[in-house]
Amino acid sequence: MSSFRDDGALALDWVASYLERVGELPVLAQVEPGQIRAALPRSAPEQPEPFEDVLRDLDEVLLPGLTHWQSPRYFAYFATTGSEPGVLAELLIAGLNQVGILWRTSPALQELEELTLDWLRQLVGLPDEFAGHIEDTASTGVVAALAVARMLRPDRRVVVCSEHAHSAADKAARLLELELRKVPVDDVFRMRPELLDLDGACAVIATIGTTGAAAVDPVPEIADACEAAGVWLHVDSAYAGSAAICPELRHHFAGWERAGSIGVNPHKWLGVPMDCSALWTRRPDEFRRAFSLVPEFLQSPDDAVNLSELSVPLGRRFRALKLWAVLRCYGNAGLQERIREHVRLAALFERWVRQEPGWEVVAPRHFSLVCFRREGTDEENERLLAQVNDSGEVFLSHARLRDRYVLRLAIGNFRTTEDDVRLAWEVLVREGSAL
Amino acid sequence: MSSFRDDGALALDWVASYLERVGELPVLAQVEPGQIRAALPRSAPEQPEPFEDVLRDLDEVLLPGLTHWQSPRYFAYFATTGSEPGVLAELLIAGLNQVGILWRTSPALQELEELTLDWLRQLVGLPDEFAGHIEDTASTGVVAALAVARMLRPDRRVVVCSEHAHSAADKAARLLELELRKVPVDDVFRMRPELLDLDGACAVIATIGTTGAAAVDPVPEIADACEAAGVWLHVDSAYAGSAAICPELRHHFAGWERAGSIGVNPHKWLGVPMDCSALWTRRPDEFRRAFSLVPEFLQSPDDAVNLSELSVPLGRRFRALKLWAVLRCYGNAGLQERIREHVRLAALFERWVRQEPGWEVVAPRHFSLVCFRREGTDEENERLLAQVNDSGEVFLSHARLRDRYVLRLAIGNFRTTEDDVRLAWEVLVREGSAL
Repeated sequence: MSSFRDDGALALDWVASYLERVGELPVLAQVEPGQIRAALPRSAPEQPEPFEDVLRDLDEVLLPGLTHWQSPRYFAYFATTGSEPGVLAELLIAGLNQVGILWRTSPALQELEELTLDWLRQLVGLPDEFAGHIEDTASTGVVAALAVARMLRPDRRVVVCSEHAHSAADKAARLLELELRKVPVDDVFRMRPELLDLDGACAVIATIGTTGAAAVDPVPEIADACEAAGVWLHVDSAYAGSAAICPELRHHFAGWERAGSIGVNPHKWLGVPMDCSALWTRRPDEFRRAFSLVPEFLQSPDDAVNLSELSVPLGRRFRALKLWAVLRCYGNAGLQERIREHVRLAALFERWVRQEPGWEVVAPRHFSLVCFRREGTDEENERLLAQVNDSGEVFLSHARLRDRYVLRLAIGNFRTTEDDVRLAWEVLVREGSAL
Repeated sequence: MSSFRDDGALALDWVASYLERVGELPVLAQVEPGQIRAALPRSAPEQPEPFEDVLRDLDEVLLPGLTHWQSPRYFAYFATTGSEPGVLAELLIAGLNQVGILWRTSPALQELEELTLDWLRQLVGLPDEFAGHIEDTASTGVVAALAVARMLRPDRRVVVCSEHAHSAADKAARLLELELRKVPVDDVFRMRPELLDLDGACAVIATIGTTGAAAVDPVPEIADACEAAGVWLHVDSAYAGSAAICPELRHHFAGWERAGSIGVNPHKWLGVPMDCSALWTRRPDEFRRAFSLVPEFLQSPDDAVNLSELSVPLGRRFRALKLWAVLRCYGNAGLQERIREHVRLAALFERWVRQEPGWEVVAPRHFSLVCFRREGTDEENERLLAQVNDSGEVFLSHARLRDRYVLRLAIGNFRTTEDDVRLAWEVLVREGSAL
């Protein structure tokens, strides 16, 4: 075990140093497809190698192939943070190597998962009839929610969402053999509820904080329609849901408490490392009915409900431990502070774009995502983005809004400062002028 | 960042001490349902708390609620190991917080996942036409494989497996709305291929190493039938598959190279912490056809295939890093040595059972699982198991074979020694006599 302590000290130092210097590394990996693999042996070693060699190759071979999600200058897709307490909790999780199957295979895992999801439920302001569990990703959560909806209305094979819903809806519908009906959006990318056609529908997916533009679907109107038609409502708030911990942002979430199920990803905007996607439902018994199978080998003398009865995988990691560590080590106040700062920085960036001739903001900003573009063609904006990202200084991504190619700056890393956001703007202006 | 180093040293020391003392702790958690949750605050703290407090509560509150999967005296279900290099790799994984979506979001993640799955493919002796990726669990892998099978033969809605197949087959069939047809087993719990009815079938799941008795289905005969009928064959070898790295055990895997897809869990018997389930397929293009969706926001200028196009979740953790660390730090020889030792210990335990009057071995032992029982009724054996587990000295589980309640001793923890197995036998004999 002494080597575990020695190797562990090296690994810990590696991570600490990495987090100290990650801001200086090119954000987007600057390698060609196949380059990393070609630099590594084609077969596993026959004899043991020291752990130090793994760290050496991580530095020398893998590092250039990493896109640095931990960088304060990562602004692509939705930015994330593996916060320090979350990272250390993953060490504990792996050391304990709990496998949650039945309650008895890890009572602490199951009860901490139920508890931390309840803590988070309170923080985001959902009523206490919601029970939660953790899925790996929001995509898997959508599959689970739609499986429940399909079970409840087996005669109906349609799922309805806006044309701006996440592709997870398409994937889940395909897996579950449901037809996906997409509702057009209005001029600010919200589902148009007057066009909601629930004929044959078993479920609607409403999004609070769409992937493209962080638009907010009109959940109250959608909930009205779902209730009238007896249709399951799933609210996908994978990114924005974390912002509901701030009372001043809570108005965006009006009506979500009427959903049958809600997905929010603490691994996106609450500092929890991948993976930790919260799924709450007002009807856990229906999830159990859809997924519960307790074969003989899992019969147990305990009178307890098992989390594995709520979703596809049988075994689960002790992910609750990292959510617990993060909620405690930041506290509600600390997490609110970071979300508010991100929203402030996004508002600042938005102002810079508005004030700069030749640039425009192309969607209302509700949270920490700014959608914008430079004058000129789609191709010019695409080239601009490529040049910005190839510089390695910052990393942004794009979307297509109203059939125009637009740039997205998503703020979500706890290490991001005003200087980082200003640098992003400077790089954009510089590369834009150079076009 | 100094606090990350300080907190990290505490966390590392906690894990090192835990692994040093885990053998002395009661293996099965000795708590009542609800006890852990009741001992914790009902709401998240408003203000930040020190990471030390998390460690303190882990010791004082959670520890009694853990079932110690890392214990050398854990013999239930299938025993696992979070090996030291695997545990430290999880620290690195969380520190890097890579999210594999597109190749470009982490080229190193994607290429190391492809590479390590190819390393492991070579070690288990599969031909190089198999391409691999990592799923969270074998259950999710079965869903993916059956989704491919259903897509290929949309007119056929039946999945066939033996009555001893894992409940993951039932769960996947339910999710995919396929009918599950169970084939009876022979007197050693193998699927009876002469009873295989492939009428209307799109897939067969054959198991090498069933959950109940580690039985080996006759894969060559099943493959013959599948090929003749144009039916997808998935081989579930979640537990036993790791043993294929030992040439002397390879004969159990005859024919698996004819499968369309194969699942093996390195998180079960290869020292990788939860979660890491390998899925290989000879037809990765069909997986891509079943799961690929590249919406606009994920269009990228890179000419690369993305792992997220092969399965349900969009984002993936850098799980390949822990598989890489384990394969390197043990080497093929080191992993073979551990599997051989587990098989030797199981054979030894089997001999003790056979030699003891009033006890019997109830299934052939191929790997590291021994199925046995004591004379008397099912209820007596169930009571025996409860008393053994309640002692906290060891933890075993049960199965039902030929409608009899039987005990299972599964060896799979790298820390398990002959003394631990002997203790298990002594506790069983002692509690058996006390009945």
